[in-house]
Amino acid sequence: MNKYIEDFPTLNQEFNGHKFVYLDNAATTQKPVSVINAVNEYYRQNNANPHRGAYALSVKATELYENTREVVKDFIGAEKSKEIIFVKNVTEGLNLIAYSYGLTFLEPGDEIVISIAEHHSNLVPWQQVAMAKGAVLKYLYINDEGIIPKEEIESVITPKTKIVSVTQVSNVLGTINPVKDVIKKAHSVGAIAIVDMAQSVPHMKVNVKDLDADFAAFSGHKMLAPMGIGVVYGKEALLEKMPPFLCGGDMIEYVWEQETTFAEVPHKFEAGTQNVGGAVGLTAAIEYINKVGIDNIEAIEKELTSYALENLSEIPHVTIYGTKDITKKAGVISFNIDDVHPHDVATILDSYGIGIRTGHHCANPLMRYMGVNATCRASFYLYNTKEDIDALAYGLKNTRKWLGYGS
Amino acid sequence: MNKYIEDFPTLNQEFNGHKFVYLDNAATTQKPVSVINAVNEYYRQNNANPHRGAYALSVKATELYENTREVVKDFIGAEKSKEIIFVKNVTEGLNLIAYSYGLTFLEPGDEIVISIAEHHSNLVPWQQVAMAKGAVLKYLYINDEGIIPKEEIESVITPKTKIVSVTQVSNVLGTINPVKDVIKKAHSVGAIAIVDMAQSVPHMKVNVKDLDADFAAFSGHKMLAPMGIGVVYGKEALLEKMPPFLCGGDMIEYVWEQETTFAEVPHKFEAGTQNVGGAVGLTAAIEYINKVGIDNIEAIEKELTSYALENLSEIPHVTIYGTKDITKKAGVISFNIDDVHPHDVATILDSYGIGIRTGHHCANPLMRYMGVNATCRASFYLYNTKEDIDALAYGLKNTRKWLGYGS
Repeated sequence: MNKYIEDFPTLNQEFNGHKFVYLDNAATTQKPVSVINAVNEYYRQNNANPHRGAYALSVKATELYENTREVVKDFIGAEKSKEIIFVKNVTEGLNLIAYSYGLTFLEPGDEIVISIAEHHSNLVPWQQVAMAKGAVLKYLYINDEGIIPKEEIESVITPKTKIVSVTQVSNVLGTINPVKDVIKKAHSVGAIAIVDMAQSVPHMKVNVKDLDADFAAFSGHKMLAPMGIGVVYGKEALLEKMPPFLCGGDMIEYVWEQETTFAEVPHKFEAGTQNVGGAVGLTAAIEYINKVGIDNIEAIEKELTSYALENLSEIPHVTIYGTKDITKKAGVISFNIDDVHPHDVATILDSYGIGIRTGHHCANPLMRYMGVNATCRASFYLYNTKEDIDALAYGLKNTRKWLGYGS
Repeated sequence: MNKYIEDFPTLNQEFNGHKFVYLDNAATTQKPVSVINAVNEYYRQNNANPHRGAYALSVKATELYENTREVVKDFIGAEKSKEIIFVKNVTEGLNLIAYSYGLTFLEPGDEIVISIAEHHSNLVPWQQVAMAKGAVLKYLYINDEGIIPKEEIESVITPKTKIVSVTQVSNVLGTINPVKDVIKKAHSVGAIAIVDMAQSVPHMKVNVKDLDADFAAFSGHKMLAPMGIGVVYGKEALLEKMPPFLCGGDMIEYVWEQETTFAEVPHKFEAGTQNVGGAVGLTAAIEYINKVGIDNIEAIEKELTSYALENLSEIPHVTIYGTKDITKKAGVISFNIDDVHPHDVATILDSYGIGIRTGHHCANPLMRYMGVNATCRASFYLYNTKEDIDALAYGLKNTRKWLGYGS
């Protein structure tokens, strides 16, 4: 049992006659009552269009929205709140960076460096930008552990490199990349460095200033907040010189029939009515995380991951991908069972009330590099328990039997 | 009194010692309990990442999300649900259309036609696209009533025109444009026609097929739904031949290191984790609107607008902009008071518990065309009452007195 479970209504359900075991946290997390209630209260008491409204409720909505910017700034260790830009999810965030920065500052022949372990959202936009600008897209390949090795960083990032964009934690393998080394190397050749923090910010202490990241992005819904709110962090000096991405209301200074001058950062990047309800939920989510303590969350996940690696390793016919060294890994485990398609594994686990994810995990090139079509993925968060892992192990032990194989 | 008010918790509040009178519905609407509860229930019972998840909760989330597509399709009279694309708001929607269609199909010298009464979200993206492609941005000017006249449609839209994009209802004046005539003329010269429906879909029966619009966009939050969810409608044949806008998860077919093939419509345009909670709220919002009846909503607003025009017209020193012909106008009134800055009007009204919006309403070129810097704007929805209008009129009558002018 885990004292946090009772805060999460979705988890206190049964599916197929079993207590629900939710192990798809890398896709999205469940929401605590405090977050659900904060959103509820916002729409019951404080809902209005922020900015430009000279009445009590609009002022209140503006305060709540801008307060979230402060809360996020503090949470990721940014220097200024104007370096925090709200988007709908990490995907929009990475697209914003790729298009606004990449299309503006890349020249033909310039090199963009990403890793082979990127989620499509930190890969496909760079393909598009490279094609549009005649730039070259290069890859950092991972080692057998599933991590970008230092030699790769040294050899692939060169003076031709203008942009480096890597994930801090692999959404498939859970492996932690040495992003500080990547950033340092990028800066040494005059490139900018972007970090996809979708799988790190919810699970470990991250400080963008200490890392010296130029840009970062992450989603609220993967860290207890509602869907529809995400964050781009960008260094002020870079944001200042970039053109806007989406254009419309709230991001302009003056508009004439044939030209427009743009608002100051961060508003330049926030066109149209923003998701204030989502921002309010994100504040409540960060407050919940801070109350538990991000270090405690990391410790809970380390213990669960360690326990899971140990238990799953003992099951015959189970292959686990990437390192089993818990110091190099967050709470995500990808695996397969001999002769069983991952979707069949998931379906059988579902009959035990267990939710995992299967497929390519939006990382086709990584799958191809690993030589698999798909994997099963179990991913943990603070409300998971050893009993959840036991249930997973029990289900996996029975999977081949269900399908008529010997144990 | 109005029987709908009790469904809206925000409205049952007091500000500055007065019952709250909310007249900023063109910016965002308040939410009924049924919408708030639907979102609440989603996060308490059904939250998961949709698509690709082979467990009960993910299947449920997928069903809820895809059901909203059906509900929206029926609501706006689209032919197929795949013609409905979810975005975060109308601004993202119009940017998607402008960039994906405009950047792909425009040639230097081609003409884009919009009206002088467009919201910046249907104006600034076209400036950007015109600049990027060497296209020419031309304007349909409105008449003294605030409406695009037929002669203007006939003379400005020519065989050089490739894209026409106009608002169905002005967010500043509430005037209803003859979009069917605009679309017909656009098609007669081989251009495509886009309609900004942000201010129409929430307030009147709209049928995209009957209008023969090629694209349309609107926001959920202006029609009782939560923030963070909006809609693009596009004809299937056009969507099929367009490149994606945001790139990432869920919008791909296959990804290799250097290239990507894209998913089918509509998924091609929905990158990353979508706002399922928002979609669930949008379904509940449309169900609420359907229960009241969109024709009844229109009738309520017509009566209120008529009453407001009558009452405000009688107040000395008040200038109302645009037509007072109720058949040509939705529930939005822009006005000014002689010698009083709109922001001062709003501040004084706020002291009576009344929320209106003031400023340029994200329509700088229209303001310049009208010869004003800013206006006050009162906008209505189904829960407003004649008492609200009386309160507004009372506040306005006292405004000049407060500031030391004679009545």
